[in-house]
Amino acid sequence: MKVGVLGGGQLARMLALAGYPLGQDFSVLDPGGDVCSAAVADQLQGDYVDQKLLAQLAGQVDVVTYEFENVPAAAVEFLAGKVPVYPPQLALATAQDRLKEKTLFRELGIATPAFEAVHSLEELPQAMEHIGWPAVVKARSEGYDGKGQAVLRQPDDLAPAWQALGGVPALVEAFVPFEREFSIIAVRSTTGEMVCYPLTENTHRDGILRLSIARPGDAMQAKAVEYAERILDKLDYVGVLALELFQAGDNLLANEFAPRVHNSGHWTQDGAITCQFENHLRAISGLPLGSTETIGHAAMVNLIGGIPASEAVLVNAHSHLHLYGKAPRPGRKVGHINLCAPNEQQMKAELKLLLELAGE
Amino acid sequence: MKVGVLGGGQLARMLALAGYPLGQDFSVLDPGGDVCSAAVADQLQGDYVDQKLLAQLAGQVDVVTYEFENVPAAAVEFLAGKVPVYPPQLALATAQDRLKEKTLFRELGIATPAFEAVHSLEELPQAMEHIGWPAVVKARSEGYDGKGQAVLRQPDDLAPAWQALGGVPALVEAFVPFEREFSIIAVRSTTGEMVCYPLTENTHRDGILRLSIARPGDAMQAKAVEYAERILDKLDYVGVLALELFQAGDNLLANEFAPRVHNSGHWTQDGAITCQFENHLRAISGLPLGSTETIGHAAMVNLIGGIPASEAVLVNAHSHLHLYGKAPRPGRKVGHINLCAPNEQQMKAELKLLLELAGE
Repeated sequence: MKVGVLGGGQLARMLALAGYPLGQDFSVLDPGGDVCSAAVADQLQGDYVDQKLLAQLAGQVDVVTYEFENVPAAAVEFLAGKVPVYPPQLALATAQDRLKEKTLFRELGIATPAFEAVHSLEELPQAMEHIGWPAVVKARSEGYDGKGQAVLRQPDDLAPAWQALGGVPALVEAFVPFEREFSIIAVRSTTGEMVCYPLTENTHRDGILRLSIARPGDAMQAKAVEYAERILDKLDYVGVLALELFQAGDNLLANEFAPRVHNSGHWTQDGAITCQFENHLRAISGLPLGSTETIGHAAMVNLIGGIPASEAVLVNAHSHLHLYGKAPRPGRKVGHINLCAPNEQQMKAELKLLLELAGE
Repeated sequence: MKVGVLGGGQLARMLALAGYPLGQDFSVLDPGGDVCSAAVADQLQGDYVDQKLLAQLAGQVDVVTYEFENVPAAAVEFLAGKVPVYPPQLALATAQDRLKEKTLFRELGIATPAFEAVHSLEELPQAMEHIGWPAVVKARSEGYDGKGQAVLRQPDDLAPAWQALGGVPALVEAFVPFEREFSIIAVRSTTGEMVCYPLTENTHRDGILRLSIARPGDAMQAKAVEYAERILDKLDYVGVLALELFQAGDNLLANEFAPRVHNSGHWTQDGAITCQFENHLRAISGLPLGSTETIGHAAMVNLIGGIPASEAVLVNAHSHLHLYGKAPRPGRKVGHINLCAPNEQQMKAELKLLLELAGE
């Protein structure tokens, strides 16, 4: 089976590395000239909406997936007429619009922070009356890693925040004083089979994920699985879905979902029986899903802007290095370190060292 | 770091898959036109002793390794003048000659079956007087997967066996009525750091490995580690070495070693914290070695001559499929299944099903 991937970044690279043992091959479509997946997948180089290239990709592969949720809907629509594309278009369209996404959560009885759609600066004050201060205003589409959003603490913030967003359709959301930020990586196959990984506790800084810790047995697991499965079912979903959640007291609030393999699931490469990349590929190929049981006590530290010496990382026998073949630049994700320790105490102690190495 | 590999078979493919996360890249030299490593490594296509190609390879990479022990000594010698080659030439030369190999074992106080060198058919009867019946006659070089050897049960066997071997320099070895066949995968880095994996119990049929089961905590472990470390030290070894052993009662006898990653270590991909492929690459790059602790109860079943339906293999949530991208042909290794079960009872039950799928 040959798999087409829209996007040739680190997620495509890690999908390919996980897929070769299954006997799969990979073609990516990416406009970039020096992509992360270059060493492990064929590339069609060009624009995502170039129909000639899309047709070429569709002709080469048995199934298409994507590694980022900002892929043009037109590209997926065109491809879907020729070859199965997973996750399905409805999931992509929902994830690309924060209003649709939050509305879906609401329809499915999934708790969310209070939210309201805003179409102009003039509508903002009224929305704030409903939502209350402080709040967050987010562009409905094309935001990622903390981009396309601003915190609203006082009336003076409204105009600059609206301008910073570029005046695009937006959503105002209550600012949740959450205690913990979680994600759950869920998988659904073409056959309808579903599995979820244990909850991952995430730490962001400057809107970018820095640290994930696997939390098997967490009290919030059952609720998170329930949420995820409702979404998977409703969207007739196929592939990995990452649902981001806030915990505030006993409440678990859904923030957003990513219709793809996700940075907060990278620990599964070394900390679970089957990693998210392999399970995504199994799901879109209609293969039985693999066990999501954890191995030891797992965590992941992102490498952002720089790469520590491999020696320093690997001298800890429970560390695993995952580099993306990218040149370091400030703010750029260039790799991650997975930690898989035999007990929690050791995990915490070793994690401290790894966070220092990563400059956190 | 860029790694050159002599040979582009499944071992090169799995080395590359294990090496990309470490930030390494791969070039293989192989005469074949459709090699297993094609999708994941650059290839220089041509003869192993083509000095122009060898120089080109040396110019592209930081270190060279090999995936099979029959690589021409001349190729390694030529390369070693230009770039580090691991495992070292002495290890390769020793592994390529069963007499040198057994003599090394003897020198290091490592027990072996009784053996004697034979240079002609005329010398065979006298050797048999010393060794006793039955015995095995093996060509000193170029045997693998049971090729290049014959069992001697009676005087009438001598002439046909000698002819079948092609009259090359040979070794007669006592036929050991062993109870179990083991291997130990040992690793030594350029820094001298050494680690060993738990013993693997192996089952061969028609001279080809069919089944490996990890045996952590086996009573023979300490002895096997001692043997392996003596060899690693003596050869100033760098990389993975697989030492094959027979257990007869309380005795552990060394059969042979392979100076490379080894089929009997494939279970480490899913059943150990760090797999043999990654540890080989860490060793030849001077990186700290990874933990060899086991994950669950691990076993490996080779797929020889045919590939069962992926669905049938993966419906068992503890199975991992590893295909080599090869077309099935009788007797050809085309992949393996790793099993990593939570307890021994489950491992045994699931292994039975997997062996059936593999046609064993």
